[in-house]
Amino acid sequence: MEGNRLQAYAELVVRVGAAVEPGREVFLRAEVEHAPIARAVADAAYRAGASRVTVEYADAHVRRSALLHGPEESLRSVPGWVMTRLDEFAANGTSIVTLTGNPDPSLLEGIDPARLTATPLEYAHRSRTLMLGGQVPWTIVAAPNPGWATQVFGEPDVDALWDAVAVAMRLDDGTPEQVVERWQEHRRQLAARAAAVTALDLDAVRYHGGGTDLTVGLRPGRIWTGGSLTSADGRTFMPNLPTEEVFTSPDRERADGVLRISQPLVMPRAGVLVEGLVVTFEKGRIVDVTGDRGVDAVRAELETDDGARSLGEVAIVDGGSAVRAAGVTFHDTLYDENAGSHVAWGQSFPFTVPGGLGLGREQLLEQGLNVSAVHTDVVVGGPGVSVDGVLADGTVVPLVTDDVWVLPV
Amino acid sequence: MEGNRLQAYAELVVRVGAAVEPGREVFLRAEVEHAPIARAVADAAYRAGASRVTVEYADAHVRRSALLHGPEESLRSVPGWVMTRLDEFAANGTSIVTLTGNPDPSLLEGIDPARLTATPLEYAHRSRTLMLGGQVPWTIVAAPNPGWATQVFGEPDVDALWDAVAVAMRLDDGTPEQVVERWQEHRRQLAARAAAVTALDLDAVRYHGGGTDLTVGLRPGRIWTGGSLTSADGRTFMPNLPTEEVFTSPDRERADGVLRISQPLVMPRAGVLVEGLVVTFEKGRIVDVTGDRGVDAVRAELETDDGARSLGEVAIVDGGSAVRAAGVTFHDTLYDENAGSHVAWGQSFPFTVPGGLGLGREQLLEQGLNVSAVHTDVVVGGPGVSVDGVLADGTVVPLVTDDVWVLPV
Repeated sequence: MEGNRLQAYAELVVRVGAAVEPGREVFLRAEVEHAPIARAVADAAYRAGASRVTVEYADAHVRRSALLHGPEESLRSVPGWVMTRLDEFAANGTSIVTLTGNPDPSLLEGIDPARLTATPLEYAHRSRTLMLGGQVPWTIVAAPNPGWATQVFGEPDVDALWDAVAVAMRLDDGTPEQVVERWQEHRRQLAARAAAVTALDLDAVRYHGGGTDLTVGLRPGRIWTGGSLTSADGRTFMPNLPTEEVFTSPDRERADGVLRISQPLVMPRAGVLVEGLVVTFEKGRIVDVTGDRGVDAVRAELETDDGARSLGEVAIVDGGSAVRAAGVTFHDTLYDENAGSHVAWGQSFPFTVPGGLGLGREQLLEQGLNVSAVHTDVVVGGPGVSVDGVLADGTVVPLVTDDVWVLPV
Repeated sequence: MEGNRLQAYAELVVRVGAAVEPGREVFLRAEVEHAPIARAVADAAYRAGASRVTVEYADAHVRRSALLHGPEESLRSVPGWVMTRLDEFAANGTSIVTLTGNPDPSLLEGIDPARLTATPLEYAHRSRTLMLGGQVPWTIVAAPNPGWATQVFGEPDVDALWDAVAVAMRLDDGTPEQVVERWQEHRRQLAARAAAVTALDLDAVRYHGGGTDLTVGLRPGRIWTGGSLTSADGRTFMPNLPTEEVFTSPDRERADGVLRISQPLVMPRAGVLVEGLVVTFEKGRIVDVTGDRGVDAVRAELETDDGARSLGEVAIVDGGSAVRAAGVTFHDTLYDENAGSHVAWGQSFPFTVPGGLGLGREQLLEQGLNVSAVHTDVVVGGPGVSVDGVLADGTVVPLVTDDVWVLPV
């Protein structure tokens, strides 16, 4: 991989993703296998004036030892200082960068599922509030590594993965400064799209074409988001890199029709490849699932909890997606969902309703939002697929026609 | 390297070094390049019943970015949660394992020396109290890696380094359980030697032979230590692995004669190789230094502060040293000082006087202890070298005669 790509990647993460400002701290979470990329991001952050960059490396091998031999209590809690740290991040407006890109999925094989899903709830809640509540700027970005490359290409060809990532992240052509400016423009375009869709106050969206004809209802006043969020102290950050979508959370009780996936789906937890999936909805709930491959993994996930069969997200992506242009299945939702318009069953985004971040479970359900332990994105968009908005009076407003964004912004 | 060696190493660190007990936590500090060994130690700790093992990876590349581009304040402080963490370690009796073995000394090249030596003093003081004060069990142990192997052999031959480490750490021959038992026996032997020397209440020790004839004075009541320390909650731990020495801190005002090093010296900070060194002492202070190689680095260090020219340690090691048997210069004081009897100029060990850990700088000086920012061990022991004890009435008590321990224990 060329040094220029890594430098452009690092500048993009620091300046666009994590909104690092002079005198502010940065906390970077990575796997040990991400070290070359973590180092580049840390260096870029210091050059951008960060007052301190703390890199915390997780180690999936140590995690496996804990899952196999540690007491269950250790899986359901974190040390006190880890909670203290979150408070300090909030007080200092520390930018949080999380590198993903699983270096070795096989390390979770053979683990008791009950232990695998054990969660430190207090920490998870505090962490979610910190990030989704906008107390700090944060970004999640995938870091190419041999293990991830093996999932994509069947061999640890990191150079090939960088080639695909460079397309998906628009890293090539120009200096790092030009890449950053390109992304600022992209961010503004997504924000303009989201504002235009929000202004329509849609009653429903309809995805149709390519074997899909699915209409999903929306409650009045839903907020669509695209490109960036803004932290409590006014910094614009990009939670996911790359991003091509504008999205919101629908009324979980209104979804009817059929969707056929247009891109292979990799189940986010199980890692199972799913192809040819066809999902039928009635009155907001999934009532039938068929497909060519991996269908059992989907059916199993839908049994997770009551919310698993209802939608938590509707998103619009057009044919200009750089992720689609990369032309590979990345086996990472962060990328793959951005290949086209998509919906997700499972957990909703609370920030799609005003004041949503302060709501408890029951209040979320009252707003028509969905609550679940899962959130799985499935792509339906592509050539021949259109997305229409439907107003409360039945008027149809084309948003995407045959894979091309058409709503004026 | 054979898996059995790594397993024996990990068991040794967990059971003998860090005194891990069921239900207790472990904190393991390592460099990213130590990951294979950190994983083995973490796994052994969980298997030994640790309630939680936190592995914190430092990254010398990120450290270099901080040294080059970070604000100086960030080099002189740590985040609040890092201080909180030390308090939690003390409260929980958390075992602390530190892996050393520098993966890349070149990363400190070209750094402004003033920034390189910038220290977070409050943290350093709290950390020293935690460890030297016995609030927790702790151990420092070197982890073979390609960079360390290159320093030793001129090429990244990790297998050769493991061969040497296996000799120095007595890892071969037998099961991991037998290795642990062998070290428990070794620990008991060193403790018995230290007790026997302490009981003599020596007025001086004299190193002679091989070009050395140096007499170093001791104050009454000095405590000699060997093999292990005991934590506040009564756990016996081994601060350094391997260890072959019994040692104390002398009267910094009494040292006369000449020492000639019997093993190459690698300066602990500068990394410079020193050979053929001859050091002359008068009334406790170094007054002349000559040698075949690297002498300038020694002279520069002696200018560090007022305490740098006086002794802070006298130690006795005999020809049974497994580190000497390994037959290589490890470029790591943790190993190299254990190749033979040695002295160190610079900082004393406060725990060699009763209540010493609670003493301030002036009180330490009153006790005849030395205070300095440096502590450099130089080996004089070997074939033909003897160490005598001298009682207050002038009686000579042989401790080591021609490299063989002779004092009854």
